[in-house]
Amino acid sequence: MILVKVGGGKYINWNYIAYDLCNFKEKVVLVHGANSYVKDISQKFGIEEKIIISPSGHTSRYTDQETMDLMIMVYSGLVNKKIVALLQKHGIKTVGLTGADGKIWCGKRKEAILSKEGNRIKIIRDSQTGTVESVNVSLINLLVDNGYLPLITIPAITDKGELINVDNDRAVAVMAKELNIKKIVMLFEAPGLLKDANNQHSLIKKINCQDLDLYLKDSKGRIKKKLLGVKEALRYGVKKVYFGDGRVRSPITKALSGKGTIIS
Amino acid sequence: MILVKVGGGKYINWNYIAYDLCNFKEKVVLVHGANSYVKDISQKFGIEEKIIISPSGHTSRYTDQETMDLMIMVYSGLVNKKIVALLQKHGIKTVGLTGADGKIWCGKRKEAILSKEGNRIKIIRDSQTGTVESVNVSLINLLVDNGYLPLITIPAITDKGELINVDNDRAVAVMAKELNIKKIVMLFEAPGLLKDANNQHSLIKKINCQDLDLYLKDSKGRIKKKLLGVKEALRYGVKKVYFGDGRVRSPITKALSGKGTIIS
Repeated sequence: MILVKVGGGKYINWNYIAYDLCNFKEKVVLVHGANSYVKDISQKFGIEEKIIISPSGHTSRYTDQETMDLMIMVYSGLVNKKIVALLQKHGIKTVGLTGADGKIWCGKRKEAILSKEGNRIKIIRDSQTGTVESVNVSLINLLVDNGYLPLITIPAITDKGELINVDNDRAVAVMAKELNIKKIVMLFEAPGLLKDANNQHSLIKKINCQDLDLYLKDSKGRIKKKLLGVKEALRYGVKKVYFGDGRVRSPITKALSGKGTIIS
Repeated sequence: MILVKVGGGKYINWNYIAYDLCNFKEKVVLVHGANSYVKDISQKFGIEEKIIISPSGHTSRYTDQETMDLMIMVYSGLVNKKIVALLQKHGIKTVGLTGADGKIWCGKRKEAILSKEGNRIKIIRDSQTGTVESVNVSLINLLVDNGYLPLITIPAITDKGELINVDNDRAVAVMAKELNIKKIVMLFEAPGLLKDANNQHSLIKKINCQDLDLYLKDSKGRIKKKLLGVKEALRYGVKKVYFGDGRVRSPITKALSGKGTIIS
């Protein structure tokens, strides 16, 4: 079984992904994002994005209840079901799920987050974010063994039944551990990891896991999160992570054949 | 196995439903609506509800692509996942699905709908509505047999991979047929079928199926749709349909014990 994580950019070509999956021999579990669609819908409905700056200067989305509701609508509603429809048009028996369904992703909510506002540090207690700690392996296997492709996205769920936003890339790492997966493919809107984010020709072909910290030091934002997820996955026993371009034909096959970045 | 359909009113008490389900011996498949939440979210975001009047004077929602997207966000995103979370808080292993997932509800889109505008009749061709024609029985059984409660809502899907809005009550009827179900419980925000919609004490305790047409003649709106669903279900071999109050304690148990309306 391989795990494929597809980013939430709007230039990801799901038709190409579907064609690729149709010819695939190995069993697949898919995880998807929807970030650009949340931005679009927020803009359409005039919802302001709330940003937190951590004391160390790291910026992230402030996921209060209103933002969380919007994310659930877009990730697990609109985007998940449109991908389900598209994949089924290609004959792929797809079941769209969130981490909350059957507690596929069970975790903990962060009860306090520090936010820097001017010179003051504020404690935020209503953040609906957290981390995945366990995976319902039997539900995933039940679906996969019966010929279904699970298409998973946020939210995850806590033991108290709270819906939480989690980092998809970290969730993928925990899933790889619990499903004993050796290969992860991560598709996004770039040919792979780039030396210079503004230069599509600056592709890094290979990274050894012992050098990962160097790349982490130089990265920021979404790429940093992705690399943190990769680091965790490799620590959990994953052998290779393949970064690839989600905009091109046969994106999974190309990533697996080394057209993007291989981290091992 | 029994089929429970829960309406989309905001006074439905899902905690009471959850308590009831916890003590339930029989296997259950749940279907839910979310109509009042669509209205709330539309109002919040300033989206105008579009209404069609049929040549015979019947009004319904005009489900163009924008409306459909909103319905997918609310039904299969926000509301479905909040119910999933609540039921799991009560220890019920719940998997939230739409009719599109694994083609649980497969059907046809209506390619033309007539709409009366003043004295003119217009043909609407972009309506994303349709009817359910077949059910993925094996996926539902797979989940139920493994201890999961399927919690199903719109959209359904066509063979071409279009997401369509369908009438939940009619979908329940087709599901009952294909799952060979004999009992359906329908919960909503009333004690059962009322002689006078404005008088909560005018409960009709029993209806014989041969009298259903009389009640259909006198009903309108959502109740009419519900009764049409019931008529279809009885024709398909369902023995009894129980209408009950979704706002009270032990709502399913009460409905089954005849506290609401029994149609047989």
